[in-house]
Amino acid sequence: MTSTLILLRHGNSDWNQKNLFTGWVDVRLSEQGVGEAKRAGELLAASGLKPTVLYTSLLTRAIQTANLALETADRLWIPVKRSWRLNERHYGALQGKDKAQTLAEFGEEQFMTWRRSFDVPPPPLDDDAEYSQADDERYADLGDDLPRTESLKLVIDRMLPYWESDITADLAAGHTVLVTAHGNSLRALVKHLDGIGDDEIANLNIPTGIPLVYELDDDFRPVGPSRYLDPEAAAAGAAAVASQGKK
Amino acid sequence: MTSTLILLRHGNSDWNQKNLFTGWVDVRLSEQGVGEAKRAGELLAASGLKPTVLYTSLLTRAIQTANLALETADRLWIPVKRSWRLNERHYGALQGKDKAQTLAEFGEEQFMTWRRSFDVPPPPLDDDAEYSQADDERYADLGDDLPRTESLKLVIDRMLPYWESDITADLAAGHTVLVTAHGNSLRALVKHLDGIGDDEIANLNIPTGIPLVYELDDDFRPVGPSRYLDPEAAAAGAAAVASQGKK
Repeated sequence: MTSTLILLRHGNSDWNQKNLFTGWVDVRLSEQGVGEAKRAGELLAASGLKPTVLYTSLLTRAIQTANLALETADRLWIPVKRSWRLNERHYGALQGKDKAQTLAEFGEEQFMTWRRSFDVPPPPLDDDAEYSQADDERYADLGDDLPRTESLKLVIDRMLPYWESDITADLAAGHTVLVTAHGNSLRALVKHLDGIGDDEIANLNIPTGIPLVYELDDDFRPVGPSRYLDPEAAAAGAAAVASQGKK
Repeated sequence: MTSTLILLRHGNSDWNQKNLFTGWVDVRLSEQGVGEAKRAGELLAASGLKPTVLYTSLLTRAIQTANLALETADRLWIPVKRSWRLNERHYGALQGKDKAQTLAEFGEEQFMTWRRSFDVPPPPLDDDAEYSQADDERYADLGDDLPRTESLKLVIDRMLPYWESDITADLAAGHTVLVTAHGNSLRALVKHLDGIGDDEIANLNIPTGIPLVYELDDDFRPVGPSRYLDPEAAAAGAAAVASQGKK
């Protein structure tokens, strides 16, 4: 028996628009992002795919995206599970910094290392910094697990255990699972599902607001290539993500 | 130790506006209802009360209300639990009928009996009727428990077990619980909490969109009178509910 997994990256946020590193800073969708989320719901409804359980991160922009998409697809009533393990990569001391300014200040090599290297995290964020989450009550239970910076490798290390303990259990139970999350937590999951190497993952860009569908076998491995519900828009969106910061 | 319970009735829906009996028909909030839900979020934020877990029915208008209120109060990230046991009273064969027309057709005595008697349900709704939920996948697991009509007594019978099994467990664990539901499922809960008699409950009207706050003791009994976060608007809203149908 196969099961269906649908991945959805949140739409454009207020800080995407301002070209700032966001990470765990809890910004909201922009007007454009609201439109992308509703469009994702239209694509879902038109596809005939019916999610029966929703997973989100603890970040508002992903939850807004899920709510708007499911409202559009008339499925707001499905059960919801949330975890910090689906959060965006923590961007450390870069959180709140302008991407173009960071590029100019540190040079392209350092900039691309922080953005795209597999296992080099940016400098950690101080707990008393403006954009720290050290006092955020939603993470109070994490204790020492609260990240102060993350590489993609560290995102995989905290995301995969949740995939294995919770999400795959719902897939095994026959659920059609919708995961609404972030560029890097979804890259981490796609890397795992598609067996992408540590050196190649830098080239993978996931566009915002376009559902990405996997059919998975009993071992939760893809039975064929994944597909975007709007392939043309997905290709254009991925190219736009790849050029971020270079304005 | 006391715990805090916050009840919120969904805002005005498309069918409230059309003066139709709604029950389990899954209509959406009207523009007015969207405004009420956001206002509820402002009242929550201003009160300093911080819900840490959300309960909703499986009906879109209650979920929309919760989502808009929590988005406004910056707490979209709290865990969510949903149950059909918090749904509105099933209005049987009245679902989809015009309230004023029903009043004219059956007379005030029969009309008020259906609306406000404690244990007389309207005639049951046929499974092949336009507004039946017999084929609605969200209730597929209910089997023979799926209501075809309900009195307030029957609402209490299916709501209270959920209160006792799930909601009180979260209160006991120290959660501040927000329940976003419907006129009759919330009347059922208020009847239980305030010990209102079967004959008196007909006079209780819960206004839409105004959080109602209880402090509860270890036995989940109120330690004092409940309070609306906007008492003046609540009084006006309750009066408006009481006069429904009489236009």
